[in-house]
Amino acid sequence: MSGVIVTNPPKAAAEDVEALAAYGVATVSEAMGRTGLLGPEIRPVQQGVRVAGTAVTVLGWPGDNLMIHAAVEQCGEGDILVVTTTSPSTDGLFGELFATALQQRGVRGIVINTGIRDTQELREMGFAAWSRAVSAQGTVKATGGSVNVPVAVDGRVIRPGDVIVADDDGVVVVPREQARQVAEASEAREQKEAATRAAFLEGQLGLDRYGLREKLAQLGVTYQSYDEYTAGERS
Amino acid sequence: MSGVIVTNPPKAAAEDVEALAAYGVATVSEAMGRTGLLGPEIRPVQQGVRVAGTAVTVLGWPGDNLMIHAAVEQCGEGDILVVTTTSPSTDGLFGELFATALQQRGVRGIVINTGIRDTQELREMGFAAWSRAVSAQGTVKATGGSVNVPVAVDGRVIRPGDVIVADDDGVVVVPREQARQVAEASEAREQKEAATRAAFLEGQLGLDRYGLREKLAQLGVTYQSYDEYTAGERS
Amino acid sequence: MSGVIVTNPPKAAAEDVEALAAYGVATVSEAMGRTGLLGPEIRPVQQGVRVAGTAVTVLGWPGDNLMIHAAVEQCGEGDILVVTTTSPSTDGLFGELFATALQQRGVRGIVINTGIRDTQELREMGFAAWSRAVSAQGTVKATGGSVNVPVAVDGRVIRPGDVIVADDDGVVVVPREQARQVAEASEAREQKEAATRAAFLEGQLGLDRYGLREKLAQLGVTYQSYDEYTAGERS
Amino acid sequence: MSGVIVTNPPKAAAEDVEALAAYGVATVSEAMGRTGLLGPEIRPVQQGVRVAGTAVTVLGWPGDNLMIHAAVEQCGEGDILVVTTTSPSTDGLFGELFATALQQRGVRGIVINTGIRDTQELREMGFAAWSRAVSAQGTVKATGGSVNVPVAVDGRVIRPGDVIVADDDGVVVVPREQARQVAEASEAREQKEAATRAAFLEGQLGLDRYGLREKLAQLGVTYQSYDEYTAGERS
Amino acid sequence: MSGVIVTNPPKAAAEDVEALAAYGVATVSEAMGRTGLLGPEIRPVQQGVRVAGTAVTVLGWPGDNLMIHAAVEQCGEGDILVVTTTSPSTDGLFGELFATALQQRGVRGIVINTGIRDTQELREMGFAAWSRAVSAQGTVKATGGSVNVPVAVDGRVIRPGDVIVADDDGVVVVPREQARQVAEASEAREQKEAATRAAFLEGQLGLDRYGLREKLAQLGVTYQSYDEYTAGERS
Amino acid sequence: MSGVIVTNPPKAAAEDVEALAAYGVATVSEAMGRTGLLGPEIRPVQQGVRVAGTAVTVLGWPGDNLMIHAAVEQCGEGDILVVTTTSPSTDGLFGELFATALQQRGVRGIVINTGIRDTQELREMGFAAWSRAVSAQGTVKATGGSVNVPVAVDGRVIRPGDVIVADDDGVVVVPREQARQVAEASEAREQKEAATRAAFLEGQLGLDRYGLREKLAQLGVTYQSYDEYTAGERS
Repeated sequence: MSGVIVTNPPKAAAEDVEALAAYGVATVSEAMGRTGLLGPEIRPVQQGVRVAGTAVTVLGWPGDNLMIHAAVEQCGEGDILVVTTTSPSTDGLFGELFATALQQRGVRGIVINTGIRDTQELREMGFAAWSRAVSAQGTVKATGGSVNVPVAVDGRVIRPGDVIVADDDGVVVVPREQARQVAEASEAREQKEAATRAAFLEGQLGLDRYGLREKLAQLGVTYQSYDEYTAGERS
Repeated sequence: MSGVIVTNPPKAAAEDVEALAAYGVATVSEAMGRTGLLGPEIRPVQQGVRVAGTAVTVLGWPGDNLMIHAAVEQCGEGDILVVTTTSPSTDGLFGELFATALQQRGVRGIVINTGIRDTQELREMGFAAWSRAVSAQGTVKATGGSVNVPVAVDGRVIRPGDVIVADDDGVVVVPREQARQVAEASEAREQKEAATRAAFLEGQLGLDRYGLREKLAQLGVTYQSYDEYTAGERS
Repeated sequence: MSGVIVTNPPKAAAEDVEALAAYGVATVSEAMGRTGLLGPEIRPVQQGVRVAGTAVTVLGWPGDNLMIHAAVEQCGEGDILVVTTTSPSTDGLFGELFATALQQRGVRGIVINTGIRDTQELREMGFAAWSRAVSAQGTVKATGGSVNVPVAVDGRVIRPGDVIVADDDGVVVVPREQARQVAEASEAREQKEAATRAAFLEGQLGLDRYGLREKLAQLGVTYQSYDEYTAGERS
Repeated sequence: MSGVIVTNPPKAAAEDVEALAAYGVATVSEAMGRTGLLGPEIRPVQQGVRVAGTAVTVLGWPGDNLMIHAAVEQCGEGDILVVTTTSPSTDGLFGELFATALQQRGVRGIVINTGIRDTQELREMGFAAWSRAVSAQGTVKATGGSVNVPVAVDGRVIRPGDVIVADDDGVVVVPREQARQVAEASEAREQKEAATRAAFLEGQLGLDRYGLREKLAQLGVTYQSYDEYTAGERS
Repeated sequence: MSGVIVTNPPKAAAEDVEALAAYGVATVSEAMGRTGLLGPEIRPVQQGVRVAGTAVTVLGWPGDNLMIHAAVEQCGEGDILVVTTTSPSTDGLFGELFATALQQRGVRGIVINTGIRDTQELREMGFAAWSRAVSAQGTVKATGGSVNVPVAVDGRVIRPGDVIVADDDGVVVVPREQARQVAEASEAREQKEAATRAAFLEGQLGLDRYGLREKLAQLGVTYQSYDEYTAGERS
Repeated sequence: MSGVIVTNPPKAAAEDVEALAAYGVATVSEAMGRTGLLGPEIRPVQQGVRVAGTAVTVLGWPGDNLMIHAAVEQCGEGDILVVTTTSPSTDGLFGELFATALQQRGVRGIVINTGIRDTQELREMGFAAWSRAVSAQGTVKATGGSVNVPVAVDGRVIRPGDVIVADDDGVVVVPREQARQVAEASEAREQKEAATRAAFLEGQLGLDRYGLREKLAQLGVTYQSYDEYTAGERS
């Protein structure tokens, strides 16, 4: 893996990132047609924090943080660092010193497909983090890799400049070209959900609101009293 | 899977459910002869909350929340929704809108054998939840299933109307017919534990309190000084 | 497994344990040459707590807490109980009653390679715990095992009297003979990190501070503008 | 868990078991409406073997094979032993000596929700086995349990006398009352699949055979040439 | 997820696919700079088979095989079907009937990121398969998806027309534009390995062949006799 | 981790290794009091092969095979290479070229706590292998480690010169000082098992042979007819 550090990739527009920051991960993913999510094993280190920013991507070697050092220089205001490795690893490639350097540059958080460390310190300094594992295992700086190339995590491709939205539910990636459109669709979805919430609070059922009674009938789902059901079970 | 929605199943008596609500999951399971627990991968979304209620069960298709809509109508005061799928899934089948509808009906929480989403919102609205995963992955409404049939999760059978007790240690299921008896056994165990706690606080050893020194001797467990032991290791 | 309870093993000096208590798990592991960590699946039950103490080790049978009772008698001021089983288990071998007995004896916490229960109670009483799982599954007292013999967890050997340091990042084991030396190396590392932190806060890059630009060049990692890179990708 | 050994439970009729033995696990599960399967982690120890028989169930303690000894006496011609434990375990509770005793009694195989050992010997003696793990870890005989009570594995309930069908694809459970009906449905499905196979061999598409083109259109799935698609992607 | 079926994507040249078919997965991945591998959980259903072909990709819904039906029509001579789902699933989306249809069209095998079934039949008919799980769990045909769009599995992007090489070691993906170059690099690597093999058979050490003694010294790795080492350990 | 290569460690006597080679892994582990096993995730690459040999141990960095090169020189007739890494990894650190070099030196196999590759070639050349994963992921040679120091895998310590016995059931480690004693105990156990096998073939029950009926009674396990049991369940 020769390795390349790509400079100045295009990024989603800052205003679109700000617009997306108003919506939760679930809403943004729904607005994208139920796509874009990293898997459920990428978990936040803190609780109750939501961030949105533009991805600076790192593809490194397991147990090696050399390329994160190279990536810091490519990071700036409004970015979120996205780190993965060429093969699975739980080592703690990232901790408080890196977070200090990134926070100083205006970076909003990290999404890392390995372990992370100094979790208490990260919470105290308010640097948002999502990781696959928590591990204090230290690393070497011996093997090359790449910065700002497209990477894939859990079946999702993340390109530099794509928008990352992350909260307690996980992480979603919005392709940079779709940022505005997804923000608008998120707003539409949120309004629709607000109407549904109001209806549910007044006691309407989803069965009626979404017309699902007919669907159930079409699928052959039937209603039985408990006595009918248990009679059938024992016959 | 044709699918059936069973109406008005028998439920454990409300007073027995209230009685069980006074005890932790560990106590209730011990009182049932160390049975009834769902496995350790079903974790709470919040901390420090304990609930007890009667199960309304859902068996759905992975990636599909149609049958949860059907189940809402079957839920009422004091229930806990229990959701599983025909094969393993981590998708976020349940979120804040469902919780709104259920909370409005007096439902006390959810135990779901897949993913859950809107976790921050659930905590804020005080709707208690236990799940196998946290995931914002949205779902379809395309395939039938059943409501209020017996389901099995992690080797435990849960029937509609059985009592669910859940806290930070996990989830335990009490067959509805045994609710009173288990509540009484839980009270007995709690009193026994209180006596043990008092004895331990005064320095008594479990070895003496439970007569385990003889057991150790019978099993051939011996005492050696460190010097004896290391001499034996090197000989 | 005949089983032996070893009495009065040597322990790391109390002053060295105190010295180590001043450093986080990540720092101590780095100071040991990036070794000594238990794996990332051993997680704390609480947040924001750091402890250091001397290990009392237990090797028991899965689903059986007999040997923990035997171990309580061997525990004293400044110890940390370390429990593992002869084969993998998630059962809740340890809970609030054991913690009460241990706290009364001055024990500082537990590291357990199985499940733990009564987690809310442990948090309330301030008894620190790290475990592989949370489970209310109760246990029997039927099979022998050993106390204060060397055990291995996640590829690390823990001997009685070794120093355990644990915090939100996990658990590290320091061989008792190396306690002082590791404490000194931890202090040195912390000072070095403080200098790095200050430099990073002033905007210095790790690339420059650690001389990594030359390393990247040696490894053949190159810089390309986004246009150069995408041109290469499509050619 | 006091424990009970239930004698002479009802069993599926031998002729229905034989009928089911003619079909693969996938066919039988489909014939049951896509239900009844144990999960994909229960794997065969051998390759190319299919068995069908009536379940004798065991619920034991992890790391303890006492109740398997009790179960042997309850086993007879045409049975399949089904073993699970009260909490998860990978220990090798079953090996060649048990298989010898069971084979002598006409038992056709074992499905075990823990580990198994002596796998090479089992293959040599032709005793069919499905397990969650392979492990030589030996066990004790210290804790009670039950024989021929309903057990649950991977979300499926297995009662004594139910039919177990197992092959390279896994294990399916047919409730004893449904054995004949499921055998008939399996035959119907097999005939339907034979017709489909013939059609596919002649080049017919599932899209046409099942009328799925309309379904795709209804769902909004569209066809695009590669050029149209990539143009859309870049716009 | 609206869904699109992309027709006639570009494919790697047949002669380059044939060239790649001569090399094992490990060699091809090394020739690509140690990249391109799907993860170790994608395992072959058979043993001793190697295939190479061009990818036809499917992105479907968990528990739903509708889009595989749509994909069959897009498959032809020399293709390999690559199937993944929008979220994790172990269901058996693919079996012998699909394989019959594909084999009739000249398709060489399947790589599927879920479960597969009819494994014994697949082996008997010589249809090569790699999957994440073996499961007889049947599916529905209810939800849309896409065919011949780029998909990501285990952190690797697979585009339609890319070359898939698979054997007992797993699966590697070669971007279609790089097929020739990687085939050439594979040949070069194989020749280099042949020379190394000959040297190793004559007793040469990798330490000498690759000049690693100096590397070890630079890294501070030292040689000690066992007596020196154990003396150091105990001091 | 500075790293050390320890030369000429003591080894178990060749005659004791040969004696142990006569017994299966399960027998040897039982003869050691049910200890010594590596966990069930370490699986053989081949079927039907049993080896015994003396351990040469390697502790390397994840994704790095430098120290295996250093270890080859320390290997000789009758050895088995045992490889682990400082943190978890599935990379294929070992393949056919290493096996060629080792086989030329009389090494009998490998046990590796990561991935392995060239599995088909290893089977063809008859080089026995046990690994945690199969992966073609290549490695670098960049970071130091140790050879012939004690390592721990799955909670077992393996020292250089200890005896490794491995077969289809997994891997067991016998401390070098106990090799003779364990071989004798294995022989005793095998004779005892032969007698049990003969008795089982004549229809004797384990319940009677091991006197377990009394044990069951003591534990409160009772016998009930199916009718009694189901009556109790419904009362």
